[in-house]
Amino acid sequence: MSDASIIYATEPLQVYLDDAAANKPAPGGGSVSACVGALGAALVSMVCNLTRGREKYADVEVEMTTLVRASEAARGRLEQLLQEDTTAYNGVIAAYKLPKETDADQAARSLAIQEGLIVAADVPLEICRVALEVCRLSKVAAGLGNPQAVTDAGIGAILGEAAVVGAALNVKINLGSIKDEAYVQTAAAEIAEIQAEAAALRAEVLDITLSKL
Amino acid sequence: MSDASIIYATEPLQVYLDDAAANKPAPGGGSVSACVGALGAALVSMVCNLTRGREKYADVEVEMTTLVRASEAARGRLEQLLQEDTTAYNGVIAAYKLPKETDADQAARSLAIQEGLIVAADVPLEICRVALEVCRLSKVAAGLGNPQAVTDAGIGAILGEAAVVGAALNVKINLGSIKDEAYVQTAAAEIAEIQAEAAALRAEVLDITLSKL
Repeated sequence: MSDASIIYATEPLQVYLDDAAANKPAPGGGSVSACVGALGAALVSMVCNLTRGREKYADVEVEMTTLVRASEAARGRLEQLLQEDTTAYNGVIAAYKLPKETDADQAARSLAIQEGLIVAADVPLEICRVALEVCRLSKVAAGLGNPQAVTDAGIGAILGEAAVVGAALNVKINLGSIKDEAYVQTAAAEIAEIQAEAAALRAEVLDITLSKL
Repeated sequence: MSDASIIYATEPLQVYLDDAAANKPAPGGGSVSACVGALGAALVSMVCNLTRGREKYADVEVEMTTLVRASEAARGRLEQLLQEDTTAYNGVIAAYKLPKETDADQAARSLAIQEGLIVAADVPLEICRVALEVCRLSKVAAGLGNPQAVTDAGIGAILGEAAVVGAALNVKINLGSIKDEAYVQTAAAEIAEIQAEAAALRAEVLDITLSKL
């Protein structure tokens, strides 16, 4: 179980890595995927910050200012999700511990489990959405940013896609137990679309990056 | 330039993310790729730690103990490389600042730049090697580990491959300026081989993971 009192952003990086490796489910793959997406967003911001304010790149100053605003917003959201995912599964665990003696108990427990599972799927689904945005922003950075930092834009897209695919696995494992068919179908369709766009963007941004090395 | 006095493992996670986003080249894509590889290794360790010591999985106790030793070694090495990459480029920068007035100056400066570039390529090349090992270890974790943690094994492979491709970009950008043809050819061949194996492992481990959801 996760210790809800630990706020990972303020803990040493080593603590986050050690806790990810430890004999407890959180932080697990969902939180780590959010962290990887946040690292990708940070690299997009770095490309912007190594481009703007330089005379040589004055013609993309406006685009870089818009881009860094978007990449920092994505990073902030993924940093929140890194934390939220460490507690998202707690509702499911708590629901499984509810009494199941009477029929009414069982119905209430089953409902609570289902509600918990939807929260546990919603968090990695949101990670997928924001990580896809990181891929899109990486493409702008690779195309318009300081070419000396183009590998960082490329790595931004690689990490955005990795975060999408990683978080999508955590959506899928929860969908397997969710009985609300409408929710399952909508979420499954959305992650399939997100994964396809992220994969295409990774390939495209890598091509741009390699062409500028 | 990186501030060599900052040891990122002991700094808050937020500081690492903020510095990756900042207007300075380090920590950049190489260090971040090592961090992502270390996060992947941590997830492999987590799968082991959620498997061993449980009666239900007693038949894989020996394999899990061997596996966690390997994944923790890979994690430790990637944590070192996360730090090493923040200073690897400093030698190149220092060399570019050497005097270039006389022919002897120019020859010495050129040699120092070439030596610095080889160090700056060697560090991400080593990140590629260890991150490939993370992909291999993820396959064992997905195949033999606690199936309730199988998505974490899958994410381990996704992150290992992302770290390989990210660090490979940083090898390639340095190879472009290295004049030692033998070094360039050997390194280029090695990263091509590593990338191919990592891509195959990512696909294979994702298949295993999806089959167990």
